[in-house]
Amino acid sequence: MLAVTILGNNSAIPAFGRHPTSQIITTADELLMFDCGEGTQIQILNYRIKRSRINHIFISHLHGDHYFGLIGLLSSFALLGRIQPLHLYGPAPLQELIALQLKLADTKLPYEFTFHPIKEQGLLLDAKHYTVECFETKHRIPCWGFIIREKRNLRKLNIDQVRTYEVPVTFYNRLQNGEDYISADGTSIKNELLTSENSKPKSYAFCADTIYDEQLAKIVEQIDLIYHESTYPAVFAEKAAERFHSTTKQAAAIALKANVQKLLIGHFSAKFEHLESFELEAREIFSNTELAREGTTYLV
Amino acid sequence: MLAVTILGNNSAIPAFGRHPTSQIITTADELLMFDCGEGTQIQILNYRIKRSRINHIFISHLHGDHYFGLIGLLSSFALLGRIQPLHLYGPAPLQELIALQLKLADTKLPYEFTFHPIKEQGLLLDAKHYTVECFETKHRIPCWGFIIREKRNLRKLNIDQVRTYEVPVTFYNRLQNGEDYISADGTSIKNELLTSENSKPKSYAFCADTIYDEQLAKIVEQIDLIYHESTYPAVFAEKAAERFHSTTKQAAAIALKANVQKLLIGHFSAKFEHLESFELEAREIFSNTELAREGTTYLV
Repeated sequence: MLAVTILGNNSAIPAFGRHPTSQIITTADELLMFDCGEGTQIQILNYRIKRSRINHIFISHLHGDHYFGLIGLLSSFALLGRIQPLHLYGPAPLQELIALQLKLADTKLPYEFTFHPIKEQGLLLDAKHYTVECFETKHRIPCWGFIIREKRNLRKLNIDQVRTYEVPVTFYNRLQNGEDYISADGTSIKNELLTSENSKPKSYAFCADTIYDEQLAKIVEQIDLIYHESTYPAVFAEKAAERFHSTTKQAAAIALKANVQKLLIGHFSAKFEHLESFELEAREIFSNTELAREGTTYLV
Repeated sequence: MLAVTILGNNSAIPAFGRHPTSQIITTADELLMFDCGEGTQIQILNYRIKRSRINHIFISHLHGDHYFGLIGLLSSFALLGRIQPLHLYGPAPLQELIALQLKLADTKLPYEFTFHPIKEQGLLLDAKHYTVECFETKHRIPCWGFIIREKRNLRKLNIDQVRTYEVPVTFYNRLQNGEDYISADGTSIKNELLTSENSKPKSYAFCADTIYDEQLAKIVEQIDLIYHESTYPAVFAEKAAERFHSTTKQAAAIALKANVQKLLIGHFSAKFEHLESFELEAREIFSNTELAREGTTYLV
């Protein structure tokens, strides 16, 4: 189970009811958050996200539209009496900033709060059902993208066959991991007879804010779903480059080169009220593109 | 002209569509802001407040629900290309915090930005049409309330009489300031004949967050409109005191003692969805009480 819910899809200035960047990632057993722009805690209420299931928050970079909602969320967790641990991953200076704001408010977080400064690309989190890695993007200030990959799903037991061959329950786990079964009389029973393949583990990449960068296609190669910012329509390629942002067609070009299943575009400029043309432009290059719509959940 | 528009009326955690504290004060020639909780810039859009007319922002204290929206607003002003000066008044550490956040985002404000640390009670701003003073409230951390007073309005010219007595235009300003007119032949014309009284200057006090404190009644005595927090219903007086907050009836008791014209109550606890009883309770003590409703403008 891997899904992405969009809480904010706009770039720097809120506009037309659109909010700054934040996404909720649903895994088999918990929620993660990628970025936390201003108002994210209100969006969480609007879309009835279960706050208490969010255990890991990842911040891509320290432009305000990606993290100004974080301190409010951490404070609200405290006021709500949260006790389960919370992990935050982001650029190192975030730690000082949060400490200063808590000190000024004379607030102590009642829950275990662990900050993991992001220093280099690689593995950030190795959880039971998934991993999260980070990679550098090219932006005006240091900026990180994130990839979440489900772990290999165990094979499914063909329970009728398993019973027919009288496999003991204590061996089930080894069957699920692909082993053949050697019965009491020494007969080898092929694993393929006793189990079948489970769904393929899924992956999602959040490419954060970035200038058009072909290197990125290598990093997100073969990922099932990628989110790539698309601040501007294609005609504004020059302005996009100046500001270390991307256009619709550039986002789509990365998706195409990377051979991904599907592309979500977002981080739309506040200059544009209507977004249909963003989607159409991107689809000219990569047909399986969708706008990242606030309140919508995309199954990977 | 003095009016108060409520952008946020809730206490610490956003709930039931209610937002943390922020108010816009409309004067004859510009807008002021009192407090700036998270999401204030979105509320400004929702209620079509003219951002560019806000020249002075006052922050009562450094609990997040009163200022977490400030850095986002300052950043958006920058992105929108604001050039006119902006003045910020608040607890001294706010300056360091803003400087740090701007540095991390590699952002320079393109407008003249002046920070006025609040150190003691007294006059903060002496503008053309009004003054703003601050006073200390009793809260868990240092906290300031604000009083805005319109300046004395000039007397209105009775233009027919003015012409009859052939008062020269150059003397109009002295008439408006209450002087008698001595005509060319030495006759004294009483000012009351030539002018009439203008509307009385109005005043508004924002009492910020505070425990019940009778001293406050002296400070806001005879003010036309006061806003007093009322986080809890009357029955929660003990909890209110523990948390340095007030109840409905305590807010009303201050209004009564201070002999003000009208009371607005707000900063409602996120525990309560329905607020009718807040208003009813306060009115038992002070009848001219209203709930501070988001999006509503109260003429002073």
